[in-house]
Amino acid sequence: MPMTSAAPERGFQDEEFNARTTKAQALLAQAGLAGMLLMSEQDVRYFTGFHTLFWQSPTRPWFVFVPANGKPVAVIPEIGAELMRRSWIDDIRTWSAPAPKDDGISLLNDLLAPLSNEGAKIGVMKGHETQLRMPLGDWERLMAGLPELEIVDVTGLVQGLRMVKSPAEIDKLGHICAIGSAAFGKLPSLIHEGMPLEEVFRQFRMTAISLGADDAPYVVGAADQGGYADVISPPSQRPLQRGDVLMLDSGCTWDGYFCDFDRNWAIGPASDDAKQAYDVLWRATQAGIEAAKPGNTCRDLFMAMAAVISEMDSSGGDIGRLGHGLGMQLTEQPSHAAFDETELKENMVLTIEPSLSYGSGLMMVHEENIVVGKGPARLLSSRAASELPVVIQ
Amino acid sequence: MPMTSAAPERGFQDEEFNARTTKAQALLAQAGLAGMLLMSEQDVRYFTGFHTLFWQSPTRPWFVFVPANGKPVAVIPEIGAELMRRSWIDDIRTWSAPAPKDDGISLLNDLLAPLSNEGAKIGVMKGHETQLRMPLGDWERLMAGLPELEIVDVTGLVQGLRMVKSPAEIDKLGHICAIGSAAFGKLPSLIHEGMPLEEVFRQFRMTAISLGADDAPYVVGAADQGGYADVISPPSQRPLQRGDVLMLDSGCTWDGYFCDFDRNWAIGPASDDAKQAYDVLWRATQAGIEAAKPGNTCRDLFMAMAAVISEMDSSGGDIGRLGHGLGMQLTEQPSHAAFDETELKENMVLTIEPSLSYGSGLMMVHEENIVVGKGPARLLSSRAASELPVVIQ
Repeated sequence: MPMTSAAPERGFQDEEFNARTTKAQALLAQAGLAGMLLMSEQDVRYFTGFHTLFWQSPTRPWFVFVPANGKPVAVIPEIGAELMRRSWIDDIRTWSAPAPKDDGISLLNDLLAPLSNEGAKIGVMKGHETQLRMPLGDWERLMAGLPELEIVDVTGLVQGLRMVKSPAEIDKLGHICAIGSAAFGKLPSLIHEGMPLEEVFRQFRMTAISLGADDAPYVVGAADQGGYADVISPPSQRPLQRGDVLMLDSGCTWDGYFCDFDRNWAIGPASDDAKQAYDVLWRATQAGIEAAKPGNTCRDLFMAMAAVISEMDSSGGDIGRLGHGLGMQLTEQPSHAAFDETELKENMVLTIEPSLSYGSGLMMVHEENIVVGKGPARLLSSRAASELPVVIQ
Repeated sequence: MPMTSAAPERGFQDEEFNARTTKAQALLAQAGLAGMLLMSEQDVRYFTGFHTLFWQSPTRPWFVFVPANGKPVAVIPEIGAELMRRSWIDDIRTWSAPAPKDDGISLLNDLLAPLSNEGAKIGVMKGHETQLRMPLGDWERLMAGLPELEIVDVTGLVQGLRMVKSPAEIDKLGHICAIGSAAFGKLPSLIHEGMPLEEVFRQFRMTAISLGADDAPYVVGAADQGGYADVISPPSQRPLQRGDVLMLDSGCTWDGYFCDFDRNWAIGPASDDAKQAYDVLWRATQAGIEAAKPGNTCRDLFMAMAAVISEMDSSGGDIGRLGHGLGMQLTEQPSHAAFDETELKENMVLTIEPSLSYGSGLMMVHEENIVVGKGPARLLSSRAASELPVVIQ
């Protein structure tokens, strides 16, 4: 049973960044690439340790180039230089940003022009679950200035590395999952009939932070008579009522790593439908956890859950998948879906997240967080009760 | 003096979205555009009201097309359909996402092919402070399928609309600024010598949420002897010590709108340098507030602040600007910088944010939030004390 025990160390040893970079460079060499240009918060952090909330400002782009050999090179706004200098990186090139006419583009050009002149290939992440975290116009301008540079999609390369967590990453994920579990454990004592849903969310968020979360940026859910119809809404002012099913889904963070799991409660007596939906999802979750073994694929995991879900709902639902990877992002690769043949490996951290539709437009979700082991998966979240818990008798 | 009074209504009336759309369509017509394709959280929300924390998951792209006439069209993952149906939008096209092979691309193609066949022009945001919130590979694939469609950058068009806030937006911004002010007001009573900076941040975050903030996603700052050297770091475990200058910068949110201002405190007696830096910045802020009048430009505002800052520091600093717009994002257009000739208009909400370097690698920042009026600007944050406040005597 996870508990909120002593926090792990913040940050990582330089060796960890060195190991990540070395692994990436072996894959770059296999692909014949002279390096890769990264620009998302998580990819920059993965290779440098550069960790700041400042990414919330969309104003400035940030770049890291991982060369075929040697340490990554940072090309960043001057405002981040002091923080980046505390990392393991040596080569830090800065400009005074924002500079709409040249936000790092000439610095990138200086770095990449020699590679372009050789007709080299470099990697950029341009595939599923990625975004271009720089203005599209700047990207087009950069490419126009590097006419011989060939761009290769390295989405799979980087996501493949990030999917398998290090022991230090798993410690952080375990810590925030334990905090999330403790916060969910306290929730029944914090809520009462008539409490507006907005206040339920507020109480959860404050509780998670008071228990040690750095923040609880993702707190969503719903409550309504006999069940809920939507799982991504902000809270309403509607007061909790007897006969509601309440669901809270939370991504809390610690040192830049997320938990992501949810809990359901019946406010007073629950309908038979809601109890049955909960039972089916609890068993589907169990089937998912049992299927989460090295060698199985995400598709296998999906099929194991879908088989149980089909006892009550054979529609396939509209969520699109039944769980995903977890780490520096609330949702990461892979996807537990029929289309995803990713092979599970030891030390992948995953959400197991079956859902189903029932009644008249209602739905239910259920979610746990696990780490794939050599044998059975290990729960990072405290397993939910096997029957829909009734609060406020 | 702002107080945390009753909260405004959440959300907006349909008329507001209609007015925003009508204004945008007048500008589209002037530019000869058949519409514009938007995909960032804030731009989608601006025209539809679609408001969810689910954007934190990078998995799914979301699209809104604002046509030359009529209501916007949503092209979104099915998981968001229920929430989007509560908006003023009628035409909602969905797919079961994630679907790596076709994440909305064929739906977008269906929508835009008739325009491509006519050789029409549509707008996309590809300029300063924008990002492409979809995979670059998908964008390239979409464009390859629409060979006659001409893409025009509409960054200025959309940012120009969003810069000037409606009365309802200003109410939300005023509410969260009042909550932020109240939280900063409580901070001295929450901290003590020896408290680790991480705990100072945690106390601030919980206080802001308890006072009514939906969240406090951006809480950064620093504390060190005589001043601090960096303003974007996560907190350390270092205990507060006599002789420190503590700075906390916070973006708290309410109903999807941000405050963004900071405060400084001396822990015990302050050095003369720190007191002088504070005084210079307080007066630079005053000069900035006074210069924030319709007809002046952001450059004028920058110059007014820079003139005062130069009493102590003529380096120009490494922040890149002395404030910015504020709204659904922690930082929005415009920029108070020598390069930004944007003319100030009534109902722009701005941060006034002078900074300077002093001593041996130290810096200080100071920030208030204002709304530009017909006459003098109105403070949304409670003005900081005119002398560096000393806490923990």
